[in-house]
Amino acid sequence: MANPTAALLVIGDEILSGRTRDANMYHLAGRLTAVGIDLKEVRVVSDEAQEIQEAVNALRGKFDHVFTSGGIGPTHDDITADNVAAAFGIGIDVREDAMEVLATNYPDGRASINEARMRMARIPDGARLINNPVSKAPGFSVENVHVMAGVPKIFEAMLDSLLPELAAGQPLLSETVRVDLPEGEVAGPLGEIAKVFADVSIGSYPFTTPQGLGSNVVMRGTDAARIAAATAQVRDAFGVK
Amino acid sequence: MANPTAALLVIGDEILSGRTRDANMYHLAGRLTAVGIDLKEVRVVSDEAQEIQEAVNALRGKFDHVFTSGGIGPTHDDITADNVAAAFGIGIDVREDAMEVLATNYPDGRASINEARMRMARIPDGARLINNPVSKAPGFSVENVHVMAGVPKIFEAMLDSLLPELAAGQPLLSETVRVDLPEGEVAGPLGEIAKVFADVSIGSYPFTTPQGLGSNVVMRGTDAARIAAATAQVRDAFGVK
Repeated sequence: MANPTAALLVIGDEILSGRTRDANMYHLAGRLTAVGIDLKEVRVVSDEAQEIQEAVNALRGKFDHVFTSGGIGPTHDDITADNVAAAFGIGIDVREDAMEVLATNYPDGRASINEARMRMARIPDGARLINNPVSKAPGFSVENVHVMAGVPKIFEAMLDSLLPELAAGQPLLSETVRVDLPEGEVAGPLGEIAKVFADVSIGSYPFTTPQGLGSNVVMRGTDAARIAAATAQVRDAFGVK
Repeated sequence: MANPTAALLVIGDEILSGRTRDANMYHLAGRLTAVGIDLKEVRVVSDEAQEIQEAVNALRGKFDHVFTSGGIGPTHDDITADNVAAAFGIGIDVREDAMEVLATNYPDGRASINEARMRMARIPDGARLINNPVSKAPGFSVENVHVMAGVPKIFEAMLDSLLPELAAGQPLLSETVRVDLPEGEVAGPLGEIAKVFADVSIGSYPFTTPQGLGSNVVMRGTDAARIAAATAQVRDAFGVK
């Protein structure tokens, strides 16, 4: 059976302007691969209502899961929650359960929740909250769309909360063979091996050392035996012990 | 007048699987911002023909420029060039000018260009080549789609070649001086020359040969006389005839 598929939607002008370096894509990719959910697409869009809604609707129809990152803080440009609700055509309002969770973040409890912070308790109707052990303000899931914070520490904590609930597939296994030859000399024999192992994804990634060019050949798949067989052929073809 | 808009399309299973951390998005974002081109969207898709074609066509209709990253090497999984051509509905074949450029990367010239390497000279009909001072294999532009390598060092060098043309609207001139010294020994004197020629963009790109490390020093700008003067100083400084 094929693994479930997923997309990541990063919402944030600060990424697109180059001010901030995104870290969530790399983290999510590694985590999903480990549990057997195939990350198939990533989009980064700006903090604009139409862009967010279009991307949410395009991706949620195409993949089993959509993870979003960013735009759920207290400031005026945090518009992700409202636009996820709009994409689904459902209502959104300050929700009691979210207020309760949020209040635990402040020594004074609810007294500390000003109007700006109250934005963080705006949750689309029927959404399930995602636990945020770092700063309390919850993420949420609407159907297959999982809305999380952009700050990497919080994104990662929310993902830890969420992942065990999602139906996972078979973990993706991989083997890497280091070949001390440039890609141009690896490509021919490798293409032949790839034809034989159609069920194993075989990729080649060049690297440079002071001694010259090399290629890391990576076999990926869910069947350990097939990966081992392909790896053996690659070692054989290039005389790697 | 509003700034031109742009999107980045990253093609690569190695990014989506979490094996490799993308670096080109952050670099491109900063560079575009600096020259006044607004990066509005980024997509990362897998090495699949339909995904690449759909993304190219969606993005090229929506933005003034589309930059792509990845999938133009010599191996069987490098399918970007063919799918960009397919997205435009134009032909693609090994092109003489690309072969000529590619041959300069090898001591034996064309004799070293085997069938796999020849893939890197496959260029869509009518495309303009993008200079690659690192490893020669060129990128290319078809209309507003600029196809570049995924390896960050090469992506950045190609962007250096391309960007001044887009931003300034003036043809960019360049001269390359091959220095058979590692970058660490070139950097000091080159920095002094760069201070004197503030109006010429001077870049250094390392390369590896069986004999050791070297540096391609590239002078870029719009003033031919200034480039010639800077080139003469570089030759002088490193004893290159």
